[in-house]
Amino acid sequence: MALVVQKYGGSSVADAEGVKRVAQRIVATKKAGNDVVVVVSAMGDTTDELIDLAEQVSPLPPGRELDMLLTAGERISMALLAMAIATLGHEARSFTGSQAGVITDGSHGKARIIDVTPGRIRGALDEGAIAIVAGFQGVSQDSKDITTLGRGGSDTTAVALAAALEADVCEIYSDVDGVFTADPRIVPTARRIPAISYEEMLEMAACGAKILHLRCVEYARRYNIPIHVRSSFSQRPGTWISDSSEGSEMEQAIISGVAHDRSEAKVTVVGVPDKVGEAATIFSVLSDAGINLDMIVQNVSAAATGRTDISFTLPATDGQTALTALNKIKERIGFESLRYDDRIGKISLIGAGMRSHPGVTAKFFAAIAEAGVNIEMISTSEIRISIIVAQDDVEGAVNAAHRAFELDAEQVEAVVYGGTGR
Amino acid sequence: MALVVQKYGGSSVADAEGVKRVAQRIVATKKAGNDVVVVVSAMGDTTDELIDLAEQVSPLPPGRELDMLLTAGERISMALLAMAIATLGHEARSFTGSQAGVITDGSHGKARIIDVTPGRIRGALDEGAIAIVAGFQGVSQDSKDITTLGRGGSDTTAVALAAALEADVCEIYSDVDGVFTADPRIVPTARRIPAISYEEMLEMAACGAKILHLRCVEYARRYNIPIHVRSSFSQRPGTWISDSSEGSEMEQAIISGVAHDRSEAKVTVVGVPDKVGEAATIFSVLSDAGINLDMIVQNVSAAATGRTDISFTLPATDGQTALTALNKIKERIGFESLRYDDRIGKISLIGAGMRSHPGVTAKFFAAIAEAGVNIEMISTSEIRISIIVAQDDVEGAVNAAHRAFELDAEQVEAVVYGGTGR
Repeated sequence: MALVVQKYGGSSVADAEGVKRVAQRIVATKKAGNDVVVVVSAMGDTTDELIDLAEQVSPLPPGRELDMLLTAGERISMALLAMAIATLGHEARSFTGSQAGVITDGSHGKARIIDVTPGRIRGALDEGAIAIVAGFQGVSQDSKDITTLGRGGSDTTAVALAAALEADVCEIYSDVDGVFTADPRIVPTARRIPAISYEEMLEMAACGAKILHLRCVEYARRYNIPIHVRSSFSQRPGTWISDSSEGSEMEQAIISGVAHDRSEAKVTVVGVPDKVGEAATIFSVLSDAGINLDMIVQNVSAAATGRTDISFTLPATDGQTALTALNKIKERIGFESLRYDDRIGKISLIGAGMRSHPGVTAKFFAAIAEAGVNIEMISTSEIRISIIVAQDDVEGAVNAAHRAFELDAEQVEAVVYGGTGR
Repeated sequence: MALVVQKYGGSSVADAEGVKRVAQRIVATKKAGNDVVVVVSAMGDTTDELIDLAEQVSPLPPGRELDMLLTAGERISMALLAMAIATLGHEARSFTGSQAGVITDGSHGKARIIDVTPGRIRGALDEGAIAIVAGFQGVSQDSKDITTLGRGGSDTTAVALAAALEADVCEIYSDVDGVFTADPRIVPTARRIPAISYEEMLEMAACGAKILHLRCVEYARRYNIPIHVRSSFSQRPGTWISDSSEGSEMEQAIISGVAHDRSEAKVTVVGVPDKVGEAATIFSVLSDAGINLDMIVQNVSAAATGRTDISFTLPATDGQTALTALNKIKERIGFESLRYDDRIGKISLIGAGMRSHPGVTAKFFAAIAEAGVNIEMISTSEIRISIIVAQDDVEGAVNAAHRAFELDAEQVEAVVYGGTGR
């Protein structure tokens, strides 16, 4: 008998019909002889509706109260799911994050899980019941206040519970069939990836593949929890994410996929005096403003002027904050001007195989050049190459790379591709 | 500095505007120098909408899960209320029933409060914050599961918290200006009662005045908590409910008011053999079926037949259950037939003053007779006379009694009369 943790996103339980469909899938897993723990998100648009209500009464709601409000969403979906399972003749018990032992720090809206003490979940399983747990929420260790985990929170709840319960697998259900070699909306010939390593999945998540949130994959890697990403709308297998050392290296493709991200912007600080510490000042100011930078490029100093340009990318939503912070130190640093461009896109080629296969970079750049696309910035890791291009070139560049590395499916799989909720 | 517990019903917080209006009233109470604890119901129709969702996924939802679902309603309203108060520059912290220390038994859907341990509420007050508590809900002592208190639950939460915190007053806000000498919808000249004793209020509640639930008044009497029933839509004083020994007897009216109830039905068991124990068998069968009887009348046995008729009233919603239970023992008892009538109404005259004023009964019956209304059943207590009449006669009978005891207001107060939510 295996212990299976399943997570269903908001799109899977968007209405009563969805709840009933998911209940049948859960009962089927139970009937197959497994212990089942289910983590569920709020139904469909519930969270947005609650945020809307909050905005009607307060321009800046206190974090503690916003968390209290939003956690009502999962409370509704989990209770309904437990009822639907009862109707099918199986016992299910729903638990809030607090009841499930999801202990967090006190950062409302973006709490980190500190510990998971799933005593009540184990008790329910021992008595033969299915346990339904509210995703996205926990209780703070110090104040005992209700917290939410922020983006990707329900996936993280599922993986954290799977780790604490030593589950055999954590299944993440959404409306997508798995992880694809590229976004099927822009590469119609994209293939579902049957298996991928934690490392590659981390790079995919960091580079704009929205199927799983970074912190959920990090958590799974740390505790070595196999994740199976699949669709709640079909019975097809999805993508297994696990430790690459467990799979056969022979079967490993050189390149896993091509990710893209249109949500970043590029800032160039023009004419920075080429003195020791100037770059450090710029980046510490941005860090103090709470901005996470992605790629950073510093041009070679022009000897004649003694000045250099520093470019970096960041989430476009942080653009205005960054410009304001930098303008405040313009006199102190003595740079000439700021340039801002949010019409950019990032293309990333990801694959553990590129470690042992030289020539991947050359082949990638050749494909991009052949597609007539100009590269503005480059950044690489051991298993990833990322480039910044003009936003209008994203589609052409992704398709060119996908073709060059022979990632196309022979037959196009029928897929629905979209966000995974929270 | 006083400690004030305020309870706002669903109609007072039906939308964002209502939440903001209530927040202003709470802040005004705080600014006047009081410690404030607020108990709030779910917004407007939220509970009905959640029940509707439950019915869509399950014909008979498990009580534990239904309670988990319904408690989401107060979670939403209390968080929004805390946000609205924060917007006005005051700190408010919301607490679930469980966090507020409302400990109940395990009867889902109709849990009884066993204990209240409001440590976190006291902590919030000590730090100068306003405490917002979810009404209608608690946590079971044994299983630690979430429970709901059933009808009148939020009022009971408020009184129980007031008792545990030794509050100076418990204010119950609704869309009604207080307790009236009769339902203003059928007696336009009805007056607001400025003060009434627990005993009289208990009789009023038991006799169909829907402004406060019986168990809330019982709780207040047991712990001697003064209740002030008033409207959240006006600044007018409402009705004070307290121990009559504290008020001046001189000011006490002989009659407090006339209540009516159209929700009961009458069952007559015709031709019961006049033997010892037959009535006992009938009532124990009904008790086993979970039915609460109200009035019971047994006619004098007709010597010629050796048979008698037994009539009783009960909530009309229990009518079918009662008939089914009785038909099962028809052979055993040997009664002749059952008669069922749900076109009845109960009129009750209530007043602590009738203890010391003989002649009240005679005057009441004379007024009813003068109105041309036939009396079907009679029942009395020390401070109440109730009669059953045909449902179409209710309005005439209530008005006749109201006039006979000179309860009419000199000026009609502007009132809005309606349900008080849960």
